[in-house]
Amino acid sequence: MNVAALLTSAGINIGICVVLFSLYSILRKQPGNVSVYFGRRLAYRRAKCIDPFCLERFVPSPSWILKAWETTEDELLAVGGLDAVVFLRIVAFSIRIFSVAAVICTFLVLPVNYYGHEGIHKEIPSESLDAFTIKNVKEGSDWLWTHCLALYIITCSSGLLLYFEFKNIAKMRLAHIIGSPTSPSHFAILVRGIPWCAKGSYCDTVKKFFSNYHAASYLSHQMVYKSGTVHKLMNDAEKMCNVFKATSVNQNCMPSFLRCGFCGEPTNSFRKLSDEDTVNGRSSYVDMHLSSRKKECAAAFVFFKTRYAAIVASQVLQSSNPMLWVTDLAPEPHDVYWPNLCIPYRQLWIRKIGTLMASIAFMLVFLVPVTFVQGLTELDKLQLRLPFLRGILKNKFIIQLVTGYLPSVILILFLYAVPPMMMLFSAVEGCISRSGRKKSACYKILYFTIWNVFYVNIFTGSFIRQLDVFSSVKELPSQLAKAVPEQATFFITYVLSSGWASLACELMQFFPLFCNLFSRFILRSKDNSSDCTLSFPYHTEVPRVLLFGFLGFTCSILAPLILPFLLVYFFLAYLVYRNQIINVYVSKYESGGQFWPIAHKTTVFSLVFTQVVALGVFSIKRSTAATGFTIPLIIITLLFHEYCRQRFLPIFNNHVAEVLIKLDRQDEETGRMEEIYKQLHSAYCQLTITSHDSCPSQSLSHQLDRSIQDPESSRQV
Amino acid sequence: MNVAALLTSAGINIGICVVLFSLYSILRKQPGNVSVYFGRRLAYRRAKCIDPFCLERFVPSPSWILKAWETTEDELLAVGGLDAVVFLRIVAFSIRIFSVAAVICTFLVLPVNYYGHEGIHKEIPSESLDAFTIKNVKEGSDWLWTHCLALYIITCSSGLLLYFEFKNIAKMRLAHIIGSPTSPSHFAILVRGIPWCAKGSYCDTVKKFFSNYHAASYLSHQMVYKSGTVHKLMNDAEKMCNVFKATSVNQNCMPSFLRCGFCGEPTNSFRKLSDEDTVNGRSSYVDMHLSSRKKECAAAFVFFKTRYAAIVASQVLQSSNPMLWVTDLAPEPHDVYWPNLCIPYRQLWIRKIGTLMASIAFMLVFLVPVTFVQGLTELDKLQLRLPFLRGILKNKFIIQLVTGYLPSVILILFLYAVPPMMMLFSAVEGCISRSGRKKSACYKILYFTIWNVFYVNIFTGSFIRQLDVFSSVKELPSQLAKAVPEQATFFITYVLSSGWASLACELMQFFPLFCNLFSRFILRSKDNSSDCTLSFPYHTEVPRVLLFGFLGFTCSILAPLILPFLLVYFFLAYLVYRNQIINVYVSKYESGGQFWPIAHKTTVFSLVFTQVVALGVFSIKRSTAATGFTIPLIIITLLFHEYCRQRFLPIFNNHVAEVLIKLDRQDEETGRMEEIYKQLHSAYCQLTITSHDSCPSQSLSHQLDRSIQDPESSRQV
Repeated sequence: MNVAALLTSAGINIGICVVLFSLYSILRKQPGNVSVYFGRRLAYRRAKCIDPFCLERFVPSPSWILKAWETTEDELLAVGGLDAVVFLRIVAFSIRIFSVAAVICTFLVLPVNYYGHEGIHKEIPSESLDAFTIKNVKEGSDWLWTHCLALYIITCSSGLLLYFEFKNIAKMRLAHIIGSPTSPSHFAILVRGIPWCAKGSYCDTVKKFFSNYHAASYLSHQMVYKSGTVHKLMNDAEKMCNVFKATSVNQNCMPSFLRCGFCGEPTNSFRKLSDEDTVNGRSSYVDMHLSSRKKECAAAFVFFKTRYAAIVASQVLQSSNPMLWVTDLAPEPHDVYWPNLCIPYRQLWIRKIGTLMASIAFMLVFLVPVTFVQGLTELDKLQLRLPFLRGILKNKFIIQLVTGYLPSVILILFLYAVPPMMMLFSAVEGCISRSGRKKSACYKILYFTIWNVFYVNIFTGSFIRQLDVFSSVKELPSQLAKAVPEQATFFITYVLSSGWASLACELMQFFPLFCNLFSRFILRSKDNSSDCTLSFPYHTEVPRVLLFGFLGFTCSILAPLILPFLLVYFFLAYLVYRNQIINVYVSKYESGGQFWPIAHKTTVFSLVFTQVVALGVFSIKRSTAATGFTIPLIIITLLFHEYCRQRFLPIFNNHVAEVLIKLDRQDEETGRMEEIYKQLHSAYCQLTITSHDSCPSQSLSHQLDRSIQDPESSRQV
Repeated sequence: MNVAALLTSAGINIGICVVLFSLYSILRKQPGNVSVYFGRRLAYRRAKCIDPFCLERFVPSPSWILKAWETTEDELLAVGGLDAVVFLRIVAFSIRIFSVAAVICTFLVLPVNYYGHEGIHKEIPSESLDAFTIKNVKEGSDWLWTHCLALYIITCSSGLLLYFEFKNIAKMRLAHIIGSPTSPSHFAILVRGIPWCAKGSYCDTVKKFFSNYHAASYLSHQMVYKSGTVHKLMNDAEKMCNVFKATSVNQNCMPSFLRCGFCGEPTNSFRKLSDEDTVNGRSSYVDMHLSSRKKECAAAFVFFKTRYAAIVASQVLQSSNPMLWVTDLAPEPHDVYWPNLCIPYRQLWIRKIGTLMASIAFMLVFLVPVTFVQGLTELDKLQLRLPFLRGILKNKFIIQLVTGYLPSVILILFLYAVPPMMMLFSAVEGCISRSGRKKSACYKILYFTIWNVFYVNIFTGSFIRQLDVFSSVKELPSQLAKAVPEQATFFITYVLSSGWASLACELMQFFPLFCNLFSRFILRSKDNSSDCTLSFPYHTEVPRVLLFGFLGFTCSILAPLILPFLLVYFFLAYLVYRNQIINVYVSKYESGGQFWPIAHKTTVFSLVFTQVVALGVFSIKRSTAATGFTIPLIIITLLFHEYCRQRFLPIFNNHVAEVLIKLDRQDEETGRMEEIYKQLHSAYCQLTITSHDSCPSQSLSHQLDRSIQDPESSRQV
């Protein structure tokens, strides 16, 4: 590939992007697409109505870019939560570091690469791209110190930027905790592995245990029920309603049996009932009690009087059998992944190992079916297998389509299957929170993408040959050093095509747009608010951004031509993701900045990997000085990572006692504690899946309250 | 080597052992050796006097064996602590599992090995030992399922035994905690990384922090001083004493300024002094206050009112900067390794990495100087370098001595340097407790021994070639499969010589015996109680026992002839170590069974290693069935290990809240708390190094009390 071809390719891609971005700026103004492009606003309030027929609607405008650019970080924090801000910080960090790298590499490394070999150069447009890579530098060149210096500058500036980002994000995380003073999750812990007791229900066991060992701080608890049981419980509640009517219970005794079902407290309404000993009511009660016992899981949310007590209970080893009474900090109510709470705790370790193995296997054998399909599409074989195709395949256009297009379509389809697959693995793994599941999937997709895009492309060849590369550890640097510059051209076009195009797709939201058009024009549906709240797909976007960062670091000193294209990608990403966070995605739950440690680790890995490849290159080019200077750089980078791990990571894994105690004191002084306690009871309800504003159990209990006050209306329930 | 030679070697070793054991049974009866062989008893009470001239003293007797055999586990627990019991359990576990292995392998594997090759066998005494190893089985033999079956039986019985041992030892650990109700370490935590405050001393900062955030449970604290400063402080105390006399302070106000110095509480005696404003006294006070501020470390012991509060404070992340206010559970008073407490916490991570690197380097390059020395002892070179030796080296005996003996002496001397070296590394690492240091050294010595005895012997050759073996991961099993049976003979003789001899040496205590003889007959010293309290060297003995277990597992199905010799070793070890624990060693501190997880891990590693080697052997012998059955066994073993890690390990890393709360309640009900609080103040004193019964600061304060009550006697202090 020569420079002219690269520029042509860039031109085509720029054209596509400009067209799509303009199309977006028109489509977003159409009232019918509000649900697609303004999902977040729609979820909270009606978007303003636009005059249906004005010229402005059909003229492309850059207003969304201005809007995205002008939004401040505080607004983003309010709109998208801490995770969104952290994600944008990752993008901003990439912009900063690759600006530095671009300057250094353009003025220092690129000339050395270009003039590295003596001889006559062609005119620049027809010059091969290889002339700009390190391949062009002759062996034993005296100029390799420039590469080494560039490596030092890039590493040092990344280190500095990473350190200050980590520090700032840690601060933001603490500020976020302080700023959300009434978060119920701070008062709650999740207990799993409750021991089965023949005498009482799990509910009784929990109550007994915590009022024995944490008497001073224990407030209440709420059992978790087997999924699918909750709806049945609601039916039981309805039956119970009839029982109430039949026994005409005292109206002054506020009936709170639903709370008993959901929050696990044996309340006096039940007691009253059994004391009165009405045969009808009692038998129903006993039946329901027995059946609800069977439906309880060995898991419960336990609430404490202070935040500090909750964190203490979540961190101390409770029982002399570490598989029982396992305590964790509770996730936010909307963040709880209910189906996983019922998994017996003793299964978790084996599930984790199982899914780890499964994802590694998936990662390694992913290319096997793809290679198989690619092999099949060789026309001779295809014709042999499916003789009826012979007629069709005489057409030249179809031949080109099948041989040139089909394999990549299949590859893309396979790639689209990866995120759901990894999410499935993470769900099977047993994460208790949605954000935890996304984080776990994010790791898996990250490994998967880096492996498949990078290694598989570099070590092209059969699956077994790729693994052979890793069986001899010593030769890895030199093998990589040979392979990476070879593939630099591919990576540049990858950034151009896959990177830029992915942003345009993200902006256009093709799938929701298609669904919307389908429902409006085919199904003739008028309701455009249905199912419009997506949450930001961190598990696919974080790995994507990090992958491009990884490619950038790796190619920076070997093939610096990639850097301008990468910078354009990151600038676009910055604008597009800001726009999407402001307009499209709703943040129902968040992890509190847990994606930054992933980005930090990946960046350090990218740096070390770059250094190892550079080491290989320097030793191939026989520059002992450069090789000698690179080794301490690797050690320093690893030490830096270890320091950051020690200095900042604990804040992301634990809550800080100091902060929580201060919050507790504030609330006690202002007397808000009672209010918070009241909120706690209704915070965690297992039925929130369908609607996210009102808690069904609450609304149900309202209905029941009404039904008891007005017995006639109960038939409507 | 043939069978006859092996039996001869065994005979010689048995002879040596019998002679040494008899010698021991005589020597231990000599009154002069009481300090060598009854150090523990001597430390607590005088050993009974033996009639100096009776025949019994000079007749060998097996009474010590009987005594060692008959002692119950409870007595051992009382005498040697939990660590001793755990160590003996490791030996007993080895006896059990190798009894099973010996039975299986003798009746199942040995005949298959011996008759594995068709052909005429020689008479057994002149048969080569290789005829009993798996080398003798021909390729593609149908009888390899016996080896696979033996492997299954050994793995399953080890798994069962390991599981129940782990369960029992976990129970014993809990019982040990419950059984030591007044341990001061349960009430104390060690705080490091106290932030420097310009206004006040560290002492004030600690007091402020804990009375702010842990007001309900904070009792008091005690600063740690820079080592070397403590003696100076005592001088200051003496000066202060004079100040007291001069200002003639009120006698009713109990002077507790020593507590202020050692326990960090600003007490009223100081306040009184400054209020009275005697110029002389005040200036001294200010001087001392300033100088003691300078000498404080950023570390302190903080005491809490309950055990539960202490454990909570030790586990919660205290500060939003995780490098400040770092809390750990405090070690037992005698277990504290004072010199390390003053290391700034921020240095620790780099120290850990540094010592890890240093020990790996030490491990890898250990054989370089030895090989160098061995090369030097080739006579021609020696003569060339040192011409004056030419005359001496004409003597045949000296030539034999130099070439045959010198290298092994040097090797042994180098090996003797390993434990002190590793202890040094562990000290530099920054362990806060002596038992922690021993545990860390134990790991290092374990890796060192397995590496140097096993790998280096197996892959004989240059240092670089040994590393080459590890660079190709895939070929490791088959390489090991080739190398291990080759070296089986060496391992058998190693068990015979090094194993048995080490036990005899342990029993004889050559070095203390020599020191004792030297002091009695050369120095003519009469005091035989000096320096006689050794603590059990777990860091050398645990790795030794585990190494022999490792050799046993690895050779079990490949060369079953090793098993009887190994069994004898373990039986002897059981008796000898029991005897030593009862009579010789004093347990001043203990880790509470922390050596069992090391033994568990090593045993699982040995099992997996054995299985991998067996896998290699089976694939070399072309038995697909046996290979196929071995792979699931490896997976099951690893899963078993992971289960045990989940199920039992947390108990060894943390204290259990349930247990501590119960203990707290007991003490509160019986009203013993006040008494315990009083003990806490004097429990941790930085001067305990010289004597272990009385705390010097206590005795000093007694003296000072006396000096104040009786001013005249103060001149004697």
